[in-house]
Amino acid sequence: MTASVTPAAQVAANPAAAKLADWLGRFEAALAAQDVQAALALFGDECYWRDLVAFTWNLKTVEGRDQIRDLLEARLADVKPSNFRTEEEQDATDADGITSGWFTFETAVARGRGYVRLKNGLGWTLLTTMTELKGHEEKKGRNRIKGAEHGVNPGRKTWLELRQEEQAELGYSRQPYVLIIGGGQGGIGLGARLRRLGVPTLIVDKHERPGDAWRKRYKSLCLHDPVWYDHLPYLPFPDDWPVFCPKDKIGDWLEAYTKIMELNYWSSTECQHAEQDPATGEWTVNVLREGKPVTLRPTHVVFALGMSGVPNIPKIPGQDIFKGRQEHSSQHRGGDEWKGKKVVVIGSNNSAHDICAALWENGADVTMLQRTSTHIAPSDSLMKLALGGLYSEDAVEKGMTTYKADLTFASIPFRIMHTFHIPVYEQMKKDNADFYGRLEKAGFMLDFGDDGSGLFMKYLRRGSGYYIDVGASELVANGSIKLKSRVGIESLTENGVLMKDGTELPADLVVYATGYGSMNGWVAKLVSQEVADKVGKCWGLGSDTTKDPGPWEGELRNMWKPTQVNNLWFHGGNLHQSRHYSQYLSLQLKARYEGIPTPVYGLQEVHHKG
Amino acid sequence: MTASVTPAAQVAANPAAAKLADWLGRFEAALAAQDVQAALALFGDECYWRDLVAFTWNLKTVEGRDQIRDLLEARLADVKPSNFRTEEEQDATDADGITSGWFTFETAVARGRGYVRLKNGLGWTLLTTMTELKGHEEKKGRNRIKGAEHGVNPGRKTWLELRQEEQAELGYSRQPYVLIIGGGQGGIGLGARLRRLGVPTLIVDKHERPGDAWRKRYKSLCLHDPVWYDHLPYLPFPDDWPVFCPKDKIGDWLEAYTKIMELNYWSSTECQHAEQDPATGEWTVNVLREGKPVTLRPTHVVFALGMSGVPNIPKIPGQDIFKGRQEHSSQHRGGDEWKGKKVVVIGSNNSAHDICAALWENGADVTMLQRTSTHIAPSDSLMKLALGGLYSEDAVEKGMTTYKADLTFASIPFRIMHTFHIPVYEQMKKDNADFYGRLEKAGFMLDFGDDGSGLFMKYLRRGSGYYIDVGASELVANGSIKLKSRVGIESLTENGVLMKDGTELPADLVVYATGYGSMNGWVAKLVSQEVADKVGKCWGLGSDTTKDPGPWEGELRNMWKPTQVNNLWFHGGNLHQSRHYSQYLSLQLKARYEGIPTPVYGLQEVHHKG
Repeated sequence: MTASVTPAAQVAANPAAAKLADWLGRFEAALAAQDVQAALALFGDECYWRDLVAFTWNLKTVEGRDQIRDLLEARLADVKPSNFRTEEEQDATDADGITSGWFTFETAVARGRGYVRLKNGLGWTLLTTMTELKGHEEKKGRNRIKGAEHGVNPGRKTWLELRQEEQAELGYSRQPYVLIIGGGQGGIGLGARLRRLGVPTLIVDKHERPGDAWRKRYKSLCLHDPVWYDHLPYLPFPDDWPVFCPKDKIGDWLEAYTKIMELNYWSSTECQHAEQDPATGEWTVNVLREGKPVTLRPTHVVFALGMSGVPNIPKIPGQDIFKGRQEHSSQHRGGDEWKGKKVVVIGSNNSAHDICAALWENGADVTMLQRTSTHIAPSDSLMKLALGGLYSEDAVEKGMTTYKADLTFASIPFRIMHTFHIPVYEQMKKDNADFYGRLEKAGFMLDFGDDGSGLFMKYLRRGSGYYIDVGASELVANGSIKLKSRVGIESLTENGVLMKDGTELPADLVVYATGYGSMNGWVAKLVSQEVADKVGKCWGLGSDTTKDPGPWEGELRNMWKPTQVNNLWFHGGNLHQSRHYSQYLSLQLKARYEGIPTPVYGLQEVHHKG
Repeated sequence: MTASVTPAAQVAANPAAAKLADWLGRFEAALAAQDVQAALALFGDECYWRDLVAFTWNLKTVEGRDQIRDLLEARLADVKPSNFRTEEEQDATDADGITSGWFTFETAVARGRGYVRLKNGLGWTLLTTMTELKGHEEKKGRNRIKGAEHGVNPGRKTWLELRQEEQAELGYSRQPYVLIIGGGQGGIGLGARLRRLGVPTLIVDKHERPGDAWRKRYKSLCLHDPVWYDHLPYLPFPDDWPVFCPKDKIGDWLEAYTKIMELNYWSSTECQHAEQDPATGEWTVNVLREGKPVTLRPTHVVFALGMSGVPNIPKIPGQDIFKGRQEHSSQHRGGDEWKGKKVVVIGSNNSAHDICAALWENGADVTMLQRTSTHIAPSDSLMKLALGGLYSEDAVEKGMTTYKADLTFASIPFRIMHTFHIPVYEQMKKDNADFYGRLEKAGFMLDFGDDGSGLFMKYLRRGSGYYIDVGASELVANGSIKLKSRVGIESLTENGVLMKDGTELPADLVVYATGYGSMNGWVAKLVSQEVADKVGKCWGLGSDTTKDPGPWEGELRNMWKPTQVNNLWFHGGNLHQSRHYSQYLSLQLKARYEGIPTPVYGLQEVHHKG
C-alpha cells in the first residue's frame, strides 16, 4: 500500500472518511481513557471485531458487545492503542447505511492497519491487524541495506562469504530459531518474511528441488486460482504471468524465489522425528539431509505441509487382491501411460476431475465414482462473480492492490461471511442453469454447500467438496468421462471395482482421489499421537455443517496462531492465505525471538482430535 | 506507466498541459497535411528531435530546422503520424519560459510515447519513441495468456512439454531468428523482450551459469550504480534489494531471471566463428556447446558482450621476463591470496580503485600507477546531485517510475546534455572541496572531463576515465594505497616495475586495470577484420573530446541501431541502458521478423575503425 495519512482537509472532501474519522476519534478517546463502557457504546447490537495479532497476540474474532468487553478488559492496559487515523480516504464509502474504510493505528509495541464498517453510525465489523513491530521494521525502501559498505574495512566479508558461512553453520554449529517443516509455497513465503525480519530460520523439504511438490503432481495440473490471487509476498509475478499458472512453471517460480530471497532451504531432507523438551519448550528434530542424519534444535517448529494432512486412502475389501495399480491422487503422474487402458477414479473433487479429464484426453477409458455430492463452480463464473472485485485486472486498474484485497477479504467476520457468498452462488446457479441441468441429467450429484454459500465457505469449513470447472464437467455431462454415482463400492476384485448394485467396473488403474486428513496427522506421524491430540483438529470453523462439526470457533482451527502446544505452529492454505497469513505468523515469531511479551488472548480450546 | 489519456477537462486544469496540447494539436495538423513548412514553423531556431525507432527505424537525433525538414520530407508519407495526445498531465511543467511534458502518438504501424520541451512556445527538444507495434503487442495485463486451456483437447501438450520441445529443437532442427552472443545483463534483458514479442531467440554464453560474468570478477565488486537505476525489464527488484548490489547477488538474480523469463540460454557455449552470406544476409555461426560443435543459422546476430570490447593490455618491455603474476583486471579474483605481497595496479579508474582497496584490506602492499588524470565522483554526492531526481527513493515516492525516468533521461539531446551536467559537477566540486584537495595533495591527477561535464558524459563519450568513489580514494589520499603518478613506466623487470624516473616498484603481481577496446573488436575476433572495419568503432558521440574523436554523431555509434552491416547489431551498456535500449532493439528485430518494412533513415557513416 502506498498510502499515507491524509490531511484533515482531504478527509473532509470525502464525507464517508469524515464520518469514519469521527468514529475513530471517539473510539480512540474511549480506549485512551480505558473507558470500556464508552467504547462499547460505539458498537451496534450486532458487532464483530476481528483482530490479527495487534490486540490479542492471536487470530481472534470476538462477537457482540460482551465478548468485545472481555477483550478490552483483558488487553487494553497492555496494548495501549493510539493514533487511529483514517487512511486511503478515496476508498471510504457510505451507502445503504453502511460506512466503511481504512485506518491505521498504533499499539505500545507495534503499528497496525484496520478496516471498519459502521451500520447507521455504530460499529458493525472491525478489523485490526499488526503490520510491523516498532524498532523491528523490515529493511526496505528507504531503510534498505546499502550492500556495499563504503569506506574500507580490513577483513570485511563479502555478501557471498557471509552467505556461504551462514549456510555452512545453520543447523550445525548454529541453531535456527524457527524450523519450518515443508518447503512448498507456505514454507517459502513464511521463510521470506522471517528472513526479512532477521529471524534465523531453516526450511526442510523432502523433495530434491523447491517447487517439486507442484512438479510431481499429475502433469495437466494448473493453478485453479487466477494469477491476481496467487502472488507470493514481496515479489509479484511479472505482468505476463498466465492467468492459471501451469504446475511446472509455478514450481520454477518457487525455486527461483527461494534463491532470490536467500532462504536457508534444505532440499532432499526428510523429517524423521520431533520431540519437545517439556521444561523449555524447545525442540529436538531428527532429519535426514541427503541421507545423512542431522539433529536440529529449534525453538519453534512450524508445520507447513499444505492445508492437507496425510493422504486418505479408504479401506475397501479386495485392495490386496486387485492386480492393477492403485495410487492416491497425490501419487498420480498423469494420463500418458494409460492410453487404451481402463481407469476408475474414486472421488469427485478438484483432483478427481483434473485426473479424469487428462486420462480421457490421453485415450483412457475412465470412470469417475462419485460418493457424495459435489459443488461445481465454473471457473469463468467464479472469476466474474466471486473473485473479480478484489482479484482481477479490473480490480488492479481501480487501484486494488493485492494487500488491500487481502485485508478487505479478511475484514469480513467468518460468522457472517456466508451471507456475503450466498447471493453470489445464487447468481452462479442462474447464469449456468443449462450447464448444471446437463450435469444432473448425467447423474452427477450437485450441491452448493449446506446453506448455499458455495465454494469458498466449503474450502474454509472442510477444505473439500468442490471442483472449479475448467472443462472436465462437460466431459462428465456428455458421458466422455463415465460416471457412477448414487451407489457404493462393494469391493475391489482382481480386475476391477465391484459396485453395490452388482456391476463390475474393469480397471487397470484405481486412483484414490479421496483427499487428506487433518494437518495434525503430521504431528502424530512426526511427534506423537498424544501431542497431535493435544493440538487437535486443524482447519475448519466449527460451522456445524458437513465435515465441520461445532462448536463455533470463529477462526480457522490452529492455523497461523498459537496452539495448545507451545512453540508448535501450523501454516498452509492456498497461495492467497499463505501470502496473507504468513505476515501474522512471522510477526508472532519475531516478537518471541526479540523477547517481546506476547500474552495470548483467547487461546482456542480443542474440541476435536482430527 | 499506468497513465491513460486524460479528458480535456483535466488537461485544462494544468495550464502547462493545455499549452502542450495546443502545440501538439498544431504539430499533428501540420504532419497530417504533410505541410513540412508549417511543422517547421512550430520549432525554435535551436531545436532537436530525438527519435527512437518510431519515425526513423533508427536511433537518430536531428538538430536544427534543416535536419528536421529532411527527416520529415523523407519519412512523413510513410510514417503517417497521428493521434498526438498529452499524457501524465500532472507532470507537465511551465517554468522559466520552458513548457514540457509527456504525450502519446501513433504511426501507421506502431504506438509511441514522447516528451517535448517548448521554449517560449516553440519546439526546443522533442523525443519520440516507439512503444509497441500494432497487432504485435506483448501479451500482458488483460492480454496475458490463460495458461490452462480450459475445455478438453486430446493430445494437448503441457507447458513443460512445450518448453522441453522448444529447448530440444531450437538451434538444431529449428533455427533462432536472432542469436545473441553474450548472456550478461544485456543479452538477458534483450532476450526477455524478444521472448515476449514471440521472436525465436537463442542466447549463447561461454560461462557455466547465467550471472557468471559478474561472479567471476574480483570478489569485493558491488554495483556502482544504485538499485533504482538497475532494474531489468519486467521484473523489478524486491523493495529490500541493497542500494549497491554485491556481484554474486546480482549474478544469482540474473540466473533466476533467465529461468523465470523462459529464455533459451545456452551456457558453457563458446562462439568460434560467424560468417554472413553476402546474398541473403543470413549468418552461419559455429559454436561449441559444452564442447560439442553446433552450427547455428540465425538471421540476425546481436553482439551483447558488454559495453567493452576485448581487454586492453598495454605492451611494456620486460613483460616476458617478469617472474610474478600478470593479469588483466577482468581476470583478477580479489585480494585474498595477496596478504603480505606486493602488488602494482596499472590504471586509476573504477576497477583499479576497487582492486587496490580490496588488496589493501587483505593486507597487501599495493601501489596504483596513475597514467592519466581521472574523474572521481563520490558515490553519495553522485546519488544526491546527479541521479536522485530520477533514480532514488525520493523519486519513487514522487511517482517517478523507472520507465518515466528512462524516458526523461532519453529526452535530453546528446548535443546539449553536457550543459545540463556541468552545474552538477561544479556543485560536486564545491561540496567535496576538502576531499579533492587531499587527493591532489597526495599526487592524484584529477579532472572533471574536458568541459567539466563529469562522469556520465565521460561514460558516453569514451566509456572510461572515472571512479565512483566508494572508499578507495580516501586510501589514496592517506597513502594507504601508494600512488605513483606523473611518471611513465619504463619496463617490467624480473621482480617489479621500473619507472621512467628510475624508481623500481617490487611486485609479486601486476594487474592491468587498463580497460577494453571497442566492441567491434569482438567482430574482428569472431567474423573478420574486414567486417569489423566496415562496422567501425562502437560507442562514443564524436564529441571531439579526449578518446572521442569527431565528427559529431548525435547518437552512440552503432549501439542498439542498424549498422553498416545488415543483420549485425550491438547491445550493451550499464543496467539502465540495457533495460531501456533493449526495448528499441527488440522492436526493430520484431518488425523485421514480421516482415514489416523498416526503411532506415540516416544510417550512420563510419568515421573510425575502432
